[in-house]
Amino acid sequence: MTHILHVNASPRGEGSQSRAISSELVEAMKSAHPDVTVTDRDLGHQVIPFITEPFIYAMYTPADSRTPEQKELLTLSDELIAELKAADVYVFGVPMYNFGVPAVFKAYIDYVARANETFNPATYEGLLKNKKAIVVSAHGGAGYGPGQERESYNQLVPTLRGVLGFLGVTDVEFVSVEGTSAPEEVKAPILAKAREQIKQLAAA
Amino acid sequence: MTHILHVNASPRGEGSQSRAISSELVEAMKSAHPDVTVTDRDLGHQVIPFITEPFIYAMYTPADSRTPEQKELLTLSDELIAELKAADVYVFGVPMYNFGVPAVFKAYIDYVARANETFNPATYEGLLKNKKAIVVSAHGGAGYGPGQERESYNQLVPTLRGVLGFLGVTDVEFVSVEGTSAPEEVKAPILAKAREQIKQLAAA
Repeated sequence: MTHILHVNASPRGEGSQSRAISSELVEAMKSAHPDVTVTDRDLGHQVIPFITEPFIYAMYTPADSRTPEQKELLTLSDELIAELKAADVYVFGVPMYNFGVPAVFKAYIDYVARANETFNPATYEGLLKNKKAIVVSAHGGAGYGPGQERESYNQLVPTLRGVLGFLGVTDVEFVSVEGTSAPEEVKAPILAKAREQIKQLAAA
Repeated sequence: MTHILHVNASPRGEGSQSRAISSELVEAMKSAHPDVTVTDRDLGHQVIPFITEPFIYAMYTPADSRTPEQKELLTLSDELIAELKAADVYVFGVPMYNFGVPAVFKAYIDYVARANETFNPATYEGLLKNKKAIVVSAHGGAGYGPGQERESYNQLVPTLRGVLGFLGVTDVEFVSVEGTSAPEEVKAPILAKAREQIKQLAAA
């Protein structure tokens, strides 16, 4: 039985392409494999706080020495990490903002990258093992893909590959929905290609 | 007369190396050039909200068509952009979190990258002209510099170079304070090197 964690980072509802296409992927996976279960985490509407100084101290205090206040501070982080550990497949719906991930997705990363929980601080080994991640990213512009004119601007792909790899998630696929602000004739073939990729990913 | 905008992104106070060393740089610039003026912006303690759907609509509504509510939503963004326009030199104190900028610094970027204010959406030309940026970054670990073993992990430098360049700021220097969690004998020579670099930057 496959368990999917579906994380959305867009603050937009129906207008969000990353939300729409990542949901299509999850639905396709459910149709292809009826025993699939899904946990949803909506960062677009349930906001992750920024790291604070007390959070840093709580995080670096060994688990059995934490005060009740420190445990309380880590509650949401613990919950997000438990979701990551429990799932086999991650589907991340992430819009590109200013060439990178939205701030709220970085806040999520900063909340789940924790020593002895998701990485080994002595060896830099990732502790999320045997996971697969599929990132559905949406960009208003186009040309950010491999070999394209704006590839060097793209910070979203290297950021996610880097930090997911650090946490142990090295099997990462990207479904890129570009040109969401472009005219229909530009958008349509890009969307068709993304849907073809989704069909293949769901069948796998 | 040079006007400096000093932005700190660390939530930490006295324990923050990026805050301490970027402040040393600003003090050194003031000593070297007595007519320097400084604006401080502390993202570590005055938090920037995440982008919301109404913010997106407000941002993309032409300035003269915005409702009073939309103008209100953009107040902080307007203020941050005015600070960037008014300054000649930016000193950014930024800790490295999980190989990149802290989420709050990405929130800052997402608040100041605005069409027709800081970039031209038709030409992708940056509108912050004739500015110089100095980024003082602090990392608990070491080896993230050019040619070093963990260089490929470093998302902080490419992210800031990319997005600052997009806004027109192409003259960017990095002062890297590494190994802040390392033993004194590792830390001391790195700190001495950063201070040497600061002395040269302040004198320029």
